Amino acid sequence: MNNFTYCTPTRYLFGRGVEIETGKQISALGIIRALVVYGGGSAVKSGVLGRVLESLETASVKTVTLGGVQPNPLDDKVREGIALGREFGVDGIVAVGGGSVIDTAKAIAAGIPYDGDFWDFWAGKNVISKALPVGVVLTIPAAGSEGSGNSVITLREGMRKISLRTDYWLRPKVALMNPELTFTLPPYQTAAGIVDMMAHIMERYFTPTPEVEITDRVSEGVLMAIMEEGRKVMAHPDDYDARANIMWSGTLAHNGICGTGRVEDWTSHAMEHELSALYGVTHGAGLAVVFPAWLTFMARHSPAKPAQFARRVMKVDAAGSDMELALQGIARLKDFFRSLGMPVTLAELGVPDPDIPELVRRLHDNKGAVIGGYYRLEAPQTTEIYRLML
Amino acid sequence: MNNFTYCTPTRYLFGRGVEIETGKQISALGIIRALVVYGGGSAVKSGVLGRVLESLETASVKTVTLGGVQPNPLDDKVREGIALGREFGVDGIVAVGGGSVIDTAKAIAAGIPYDGDFWDFWAGKNVISKALPVGVVLTIPAAGSEGSGNSVITLREGMRKISLRTDYWLRPKVALMNPELTFTLPPYQTAAGIVDMMAHIMERYFTPTPEVEITDRVSEGVLMAIMEEGRKVMAHPDDYDARANIMWSGTLAHNGICGTGRVEDWTSHAMEHELSALYGVTHGAGLAVVFPAWLTFMARHSPAKPAQFARRVMKVDAAGSDMELALQGIARLKDFFRSLGMPVTLAELGVPDPDIPELVRRLHDNKGAVIGGYYRLEAPQTTEIYRLML
Repeated sequence: MNNFTYCTPTRYLFGRGVEIETGKQISALGIIRALVVYGGGSAVKSGVLGRVLESLETASVKTVTLGGVQPNPLDDKVREGIALGREFGVDGIVAVGGGSVIDTAKAIAAGIPYDGDFWDFWAGKNVISKALPVGVVLTIPAAGSEGSGNSVITLREGMRKISLRTDYWLRPKVALMNPELTFTLPPYQTAAGIVDMMAHIMERYFTPTPEVEITDRVSEGVLMAIMEEGRKVMAHPDDYDARANIMWSGTLAHNGICGTGRVEDWTSHAMEHELSALYGVTHGAGLAVVFPAWLTFMARHSPAKPAQFARRVMKVDAAGSDMELALQGIARLKDFFRSLGMPVTLAELGVPDPDIPELVRRLHDNKGAVIGGYYRLEAPQTTEIYRLML
Repeated sequence: MNNFTYCTPTRYLFGRGVEIETGKQISALGIIRALVVYGGGSAVKSGVLGRVLESLETASVKTVTLGGVQPNPLDDKVREGIALGREFGVDGIVAVGGGSVIDTAKAIAAGIPYDGDFWDFWAGKNVISKALPVGVVLTIPAAGSEGSGNSVITLREGMRKISLRTDYWLRPKVALMNPELTFTLPPYQTAAGIVDMMAHIMERYFTPTPEVEITDRVSEGVLMAIMEEGRKVMAHPDDYDARANIMWSGTLAHNGICGTGRVEDWTSHAMEHELSALYGVTHGAGLAVVFPAWLTFMARHSPAKPAQFARRVMKVDAAGSDMELALQGIARLKDFFRSLGMPVTLAELGVPDPDIPELVRRLHDNKGAVIGGYYRLEAPQTTEIYRLML
């Protein structure tokens, strides 16, 4: 087990109706003027945005709103938020939405008190040392951004999609999580969220670090819970308990508890980010294509952990070499993704004729010549993995 | 799944040599005069106390020390610490030790800024609204106090052993966890710690709340990891990775992650506290006797969850009623405790002739006429459970 630091100070309020606590919680953070960030019209139509604004007003928190955050959020919206927040003199950000909204809110929170261009942090030119406090009302469980220190923003110039990870500064101070708000999520979005949270665990799980049994067992447990409850929410979108289990699983998948003590990988996310950037696909759906392909490559080159995954998580109960077990586990993983209505090939994803050389070029331009923590990959290998998605 | 609030802001630094970071971490909390609390001579002899004091001095943190905290710590030592801390004008506490030392440090931290008697909080006469920050250098993994909001103190008058649980105030700000410091723990203490951490999970796991699959799966995962790694540390006390897995498991067992969304029980701890108070037994060893007895009672009255425990954790793979499965699971749990060298009867615990009526009287005097979250118990039932320990 490797040395690690673990600190997840986010205060989670979880359950029915918790969004009406927003004002009280935001006020308790000392925030008196908040920028409220949201996405499309669903937060307005569902009434959640109205309840949040009313709750903030009741708690005497002044607000200004910024709507229209899109999936795979762009730097433009962050800049718009920074300008609006400065103009209004906000001292905190409230995100009402899913990963794209929260990631945008985090970037605004880091950008407002910074003299330079916020993208400096994402480009690795500077390190965040100050940020406004962020509160979250979660409406889409998937990205885990409500508990993570991460923010993924795409720079329109060159469509560079970059994930910034901080230990501390970008973690929300408070997250209000009402599973009822997710009843009306469309099936495709629910399914993509399930894949995304599973990927967040698997990116950590497939590691070269030996002897991390406690982290393995926790990760396997969260994966099994997601699969069991995932089947339920697809069949019964208004099953409160299933939605609650999925929502909390999405947080645990990405708040760090599944990563303690080990080297992580994140190749699949990097490979998917290029698909999203080039073809505008839904992140979770892209991961459903990338992850089995990446894992198939791994079964050939480093099969022990994929075999453990097959036995413990996918319940493959057969004799055979590690590679054989691993391949059976991958087949079951694909079956599960298909059962959710997710694609498992690029064609099914709507990219029948991908420009693999361009994907590979962009990937290594953005992430370096050698990538991955589990098994080190260069362009010939990442090319092979993209081909496995065909 | 029930509504819940979850907030674990402790910063964990985990790994080889991390105790030399104590000064830097304590100083970063703004502490300039610290009371350093420790237990017996082992912290002195092993050199860890010296390294911690040196690290604090290097960071310009002034210190005063309070040693001699005993297992099942008494209010006397807390009062001594409060007086010493006030005299020296400390603004933070550093605990170097295990649960008893940390719990004493927490009580001192709550007592110093309080005008009344610190026991008011434990007696339920007042609620903590202020406490000095506490840092921990953990040397005994078991109690989970390094990450929990709990503190268990025994009032010498009447030997009342009371656990106070707070959401926030008693959680340490920072915990430094070096598994190497646990290599020299005696086997009995290592084993008792393993039982204690398993009990912390099981007190939460056996719940009447349905549909908490994510919390169940995480709990089951931590239990399986503890059993696997527990066998290793007993066989090889200086196996770094096994010690590391056990140490981190002890934190996860009690920082709340195994309890989200459900009613908890805690009857077994309450029943053990009376054994410790009356007969001075080691807490974890007492739990090895209490828990299987309590679970045997439960198998008769509410067998579904004990059967799930048997299947998923104890790997009982047989046909049969829930009660039959549960009893097989309990038999395996006892076998595991025995394999650690732990007692599973009161006689083996060194209490061949227990005063059961007195234990029951004290239990309900301290905890109320009806106790337990999983299944409600009155004196006739708790009497039956104590008898099952014979």
